[in-house]
Amino acid sequence: MKYGMIATWRMAVEGITEAAKDLNNGATAGDAIEKAIKMVEDYPLYKSVGYGGLPNENCEVELDAAYMDGNTLSIGAVGGIRDFKNPISIARKLSEERFNCFLVGTGAEEYAHKNGFERVNMLTDRAKQFYEKRRKETIEKGLSPYDGHDTVGMISLDTEGSMVAATSTSGLFMKRRGRVGDSPVSGSGFYCDSEVGGASATGLGEDLMKGCISYEIVRLMKEGMTPQQAADTAVSKLHDELTRRRGKSGDLSVVCMNNKGEFGAATNIAGFSFSVVRDGEEPQVYVCDKQENGVTTYEPASQEWLDAYIKRINSPVTFD
Amino acid sequence: MKYGMIATWRMAVEGITEAAKDLNNGATAGDAIEKAIKMVEDYPLYKSVGYGGLPNENCEVELDAAYMDGNTLSIGAVGGIRDFKNPISIARKLSEERFNCFLVGTGAEEYAHKNGFERVNMLTDRAKQFYEKRRKETIEKGLSPYDGHDTVGMISLDTEGSMVAATSTSGLFMKRRGRVGDSPVSGSGFYCDSEVGGASATGLGEDLMKGCISYEIVRLMKEGMTPQQAADTAVSKLHDELTRRRGKSGDLSVVCMNNKGEFGAATNIAGFSFSVVRDGEEPQVYVCDKQENGVTTYEPASQEWLDAYIKRINSPVTFD
Repeated sequence: MKYGMIATWRMAVEGITEAAKDLNNGATAGDAIEKAIKMVEDYPLYKSVGYGGLPNENCEVELDAAYMDGNTLSIGAVGGIRDFKNPISIARKLSEERFNCFLVGTGAEEYAHKNGFERVNMLTDRAKQFYEKRRKETIEKGLSPYDGHDTVGMISLDTEGSMVAATSTSGLFMKRRGRVGDSPVSGSGFYCDSEVGGASATGLGEDLMKGCISYEIVRLMKEGMTPQQAADTAVSKLHDELTRRRGKSGDLSVVCMNNKGEFGAATNIAGFSFSVVRDGEEPQVYVCDKQENGVTTYEPASQEWLDAYIKRINSPVTFD
Repeated sequence: MKYGMIATWRMAVEGITEAAKDLNNGATAGDAIEKAIKMVEDYPLYKSVGYGGLPNENCEVELDAAYMDGNTLSIGAVGGIRDFKNPISIARKLSEERFNCFLVGTGAEEYAHKNGFERVNMLTDRAKQFYEKRRKETIEKGLSPYDGHDTVGMISLDTEGSMVAATSTSGLFMKRRGRVGDSPVSGSGFYCDSEVGGASATGLGEDLMKGCISYEIVRLMKEGMTPQQAADTAVSKLHDELTRRRGKSGDLSVVCMNNKGEFGAATNIAGFSFSVVRDGEEPQVYVCDKQENGVTTYEPASQEWLDAYIKRINSPVTFD
């Protein structure tokens, strides 16, 4: 039996690389995905997830996360939680409950506290600098400050054939306090069914929710589409509907994997990257072109692209 | 052109009766649905929506609501909001935003306050009595306190052919602080596309979310099913999947209407009621039997049933 993991963005590659070793040793899809996402959450230079994530308009880091077990369809999710180290672990714990599986704000924090999850000030000095810079460049000039919404969304498949989907994000940079995107919303930010496959999304949550895009991708795979066909179909349909009805679509990017370990990715933006690992293969980062005529093309990230990425996330925050 | 409204539960009938008069005079689907849901929110004896809604385990009334415009697919939603008179109006206002459309907890309250929505203490003496009674009967005896989750979910169709879906609820009685159910979750508690129709759900939100049931119903109508077929198919499929994978399914009840004013309803519980009004017809309450072999049957509520309902909601809260 094969195992595999796929995740949105380059930032996931270290996590899935480590977690794949566990999968190779028989770890469950749930343990692997939690480990991989915690690594993304814990890394301070990834500025859209966990520690170091960019704050809301009040300079508070509010985090969303979700976990879905593809065997039981159990879901756990948190929205707008502050100052807990690993939202993904709280979401996973909530997925074990029959009631009260999706908790937001203060209530989510109380649950996390009572269940012994680690409290940390999640706002880094670097995130504060980005906040100040953004404020100067947008709000103080009367411009819209909203930008950046790179959720880590991940699917894992273990050697038993069990699948899990999970997400974690600090959400839209400069969002209003209490804003929840698609990441903790079942069917929009994630969906998983071990009998079919799983999908996860990143982009403008407000628009991803209008099409229940992750549920739709899993459904299309169930109908017989390959993961790539399902991802491309769902993105192009939603993009076209939003453009027709609203004049424009926000960023829509998705990844998916079926229970044979085949994967797909689609996006309506240039430069969307994703990370994949499968047994017998080296972990790989891919970079996508913007979808054209309903088809997304991507290729392995070049060394130049990977080097530029590392340089960018390490560069000092400069003010104009 | 026809107009129509359908809503979960008997409690919606006064609201849709009034709103249908407006639709008959050319009101928009959005104005009609907001008016109808406000009437349910404002009525103190409906103990699962708005004023008089039953509180969480901390004896706080936390409310969820959503609004979806079937023309633009715009969504606005609030989760876990306290002490505002009409969550539906806040959700509708949020649906006009491009960003930050789903707000929870304190952030939702700040938005509502800044936008001039009316603050009211939403906890009634009667709701407090129900809380005390429930606490004595369950928590103090070591039993699970969770019970009751009668969301008002509604679809409206106006004479221009525009459609809107909306929900409002105090959520699961005795829920944990911050618990959010399916009602503000796109695709689960509601979905609407004026080119097809709309759907809304009530029941155990944690289970409704596992199947994105409202999105699925609209999708099935788009594929050509009648509203009744779509509702029955979605409920029976999700009920069967949950039973097979988890040993049981929570309560799942749905209503839907297509853009011709045809409607459907389905449920896996006995006694689910719903309310319908269409031009040229009198407002009508129906009472369902539990679905059998994928088919839900219902008939107009008898006078006896309607009288018993009024007696029940007006009866004093008694302690054993």
